[in-house]
Amino acid sequence: MTSYLSHLECTICGAEYPSDRLSGVSPCCGKVLYARYDLPRIRAEVDRDRLAERTPNMWRFAELLPVDDPDNIVTLGEGGTPLMELKNLEQALGVSNLYVKEEGLNPTGTFKARGIAAAISKGLELGATGFTMPSAGNAAGAAAAYCARAGLSAKLNLVDGLIGDAGRQAVAVAQEQGLFDLSTLKEPYRAEGKKSMGLELAMQFGWRMPEAIIYPAGGGTGIIGMHKGFLELLELGWIKGDLPKFIAVQAEGCQPIVKAFHEGKDTAEPWPNATTVADGLRVPGPFADYLMLHAIRDTGGTALAVSDADMIAAMYELATAEGIFACPEGAATLVGYKRLIAEGFLRKDETTVLFNTGSGYKYLQLIEGVKG
Amino acid sequence: MTSYLSHLECTICGAEYPSDRLSGVSPCCGKVLYARYDLPRIRAEVDRDRLAERTPNMWRFAELLPVDDPDNIVTLGEGGTPLMELKNLEQALGVSNLYVKEEGLNPTGTFKARGIAAAISKGLELGATGFTMPSAGNAAGAAAAYCARAGLSAKLNLVDGLIGDAGRQAVAVAQEQGLFDLSTLKEPYRAEGKKSMGLELAMQFGWRMPEAIIYPAGGGTGIIGMHKGFLELLELGWIKGDLPKFIAVQAEGCQPIVKAFHEGKDTAEPWPNATTVADGLRVPGPFADYLMLHAIRDTGGTALAVSDADMIAAMYELATAEGIFACPEGAATLVGYKRLIAEGFLRKDETTVLFNTGSGYKYLQLIEGVKG
Ligand SMILES: Cc1ncc(COP(=O)(O)O)c(C=O)c1O
Ligand SMILES: Cc1ncc(COP(=O)(O)O)c(C=O)c1O
Ligand SMILES: [Zn+2]
Ligand SMILES: [Zn+2]
Repeated sequence: MTSYLSHLECTICGAEYPSDRLSGVSPCCGKVLYARYDLPRIRAEVDRDRLAERTPNMWRFAELLPVDDPDNIVTLGEGGTPLMELKNLEQALGVSNLYVKEEGLNPTGTFKARGIAAAISKGLELGATGFTMPSAGNAAGAAAAYCARAGLSAKLNLVDGLIGDAGRQAVAVAQEQGLFDLSTLKEPYRAEGKKSMGLELAMQFGWRMPEAIIYPAGGGTGIIGMHKGFLELLELGWIKGDLPKFIAVQAEGCQPIVKAFHEGKDTAEPWPNATTVADGLRVPGPFADYLMLHAIRDTGGTALAVSDADMIAAMYELATAEGIFACPEGAATLVGYKRLIAEGFLRKDETTVLFNTGSGYKYLQLIEGVKG
Repeated sequence: MTSYLSHLECTICGAEYPSDRLSGVSPCCGKVLYARYDLPRIRAEVDRDRLAERTPNMWRFAELLPVDDPDNIVTLGEGGTPLMELKNLEQALGVSNLYVKEEGLNPTGTFKARGIAAAISKGLELGATGFTMPSAGNAAGAAAAYCARAGLSAKLNLVDGLIGDAGRQAVAVAQEQGLFDLSTLKEPYRAEGKKSMGLELAMQFGWRMPEAIIYPAGGGTGIIGMHKGFLELLELGWIKGDLPKFIAVQAEGCQPIVKAFHEGKDTAEPWPNATTVADGLRVPGPFADYLMLHAIRDTGGTALAVSDADMIAAMYELATAEGIFACPEGAATLVGYKRLIAEGFLRKDETTVLFNTGSGYKYLQLIEGVKG
């Protein structure tokens, strides 16, 4: 069980770079670098059906993750989250084949654990001695936990502004203090961790893909990572068929991708005065806009925005109908699903996975009558 | 994959009862009923080494759990939690082989999910139409979620008193409204769900047992269930060797088991004016005191009490040293471990598992500077 990582590749021009040193954005184009693997060798050497026997966390996909030496893996048991059919909601809505991927059961309560575990493990393997990042909260919570687990200390700077303002501070702090910058998609490996959500989904469906994935999109690592992961599985011959339609849900108060998608643009304009209770969706100018828009279009997906009030109502709906305490971002996917069924974009029997990206316990301030 | 449940047995006199109807305490002695399985038939028919391939939640142990028809399982993906070595703490304390079982990654954020999933699934299979229970919070949170998942509604009654007062109300409500009472160890199946923690531990250690388990003991289902589980695995021949020493940690402000253990008693007196920030340890008169005390003595374990201040300090210690955000109950086990090492009760290289029974996100009020 070791990585088959081979090199890095610029997502704009295809230029290749070695993966044996710390890398940020592509030197050629200043945009996202993708990790590339020796897929023909994995195909020849790895038996897909043995993966089920491994410890059920994301590292069961070690060959398709970037860490070379298993001893360098910094783990809190991330991944291996449940995929559950929502039978009560199916009945209430008159639909079938509706699932949730429950990422709230990850360490630190969100899917962010996956990306941070991958990026910190690989960063340390390549010689990083400390990390910095901007965050609305969930990613930083994960980063602090994984730094602690790696024996590093963590420090929180509260920034009075939006994620972009925090991003500029992170760059400054990185330069001053020699820390490695983990900003979303400005290094290649957080997306690799997120990719494991797609690998798991395929495995949990018996090496099939669902027909649609509804995902609350902020910076975009989830959609981008899973799209990349499915393409790798197809190339490996581990799955067959059509990619799931990637459907991005954003907040009405911050919907740069929705706007760009419907205007037919390849990149998004920064959303002015971004505001939403869904912290993870408050990303007005996502760096990897072009990759998100590509994943959505490439798969025949779509993008839509939902109101904060609808998200919060859907938190209650998921809790009372299915016992799932979702974050507002995750609940937003249910709002999106219902709208797309009503509009006929999704068939009522289309196998659809809602991503609950985090636990409602991190958003108790949104719940009526919670003490404090 | 189906249950090999055969009958129920009184833990006092050994009288046997059929397991095909809803049961509470034993009719003969009014105490705990144990679920018994056809272990010889499991031994003949089930291959231990195939369990690793199954979906990694507690139902992978279906043969040793009570639900007959898999369609009756009400699940949110409980179990399959990480077992992690605490390398940083090992180094800091000069010890080795120190592990945590991270039950905070269960649905609803605590190990309670296991017991409630088992009891509600089996209760519905046997004809229950609704449930009631007293709870300090975590069990009720799980019960509400699993009721929702089962398509039932949930209602919270706040009781101004201790868990015993809530217990009396639960009995009254059960009678009035025809609800089935899920009070700790007053029905046979919550303990079966908790048992799965022990089954998992054995599997995660490669079908071995650790040498010591430190567990925050309130009502006792965790210790009692795991002890029962290990005995079943031994009888199946799936594991060999000595049972782990069961070590119960309680709060200084509520330590009935610690007192009874050190006084050499077989049952505990109710602890007066119970008080502790660790809600799950505020159980002044545990119904299954005799089973807890037996499990501790039978395995050469011990019992000790820790202060609330020490628990809270240990929450910070686990977070900063290992990135694990524990509940105070879970953190109490680290306090206990350090004391038992200092006293020489545990060897520094003794394979020891601390149980973090829940997530710190459920106890944010204990954390300095958390908003609200
Ligand atoms: C709970 C939650 N959901 C969704 C997102 C969006 O993440 P991304 O689009 O990068 O996958 C975030 C990011 O902060 C988040 O915290
Ligand atoms: C977090 C937590 N830990 C430990 C306990 C003690 O449980 P038991 O002794 O029944 O296993 C409880 C019970 O409420 C709990 O909520
Ligand atoms: Zn380029
Ligand atoms: Zn009896």
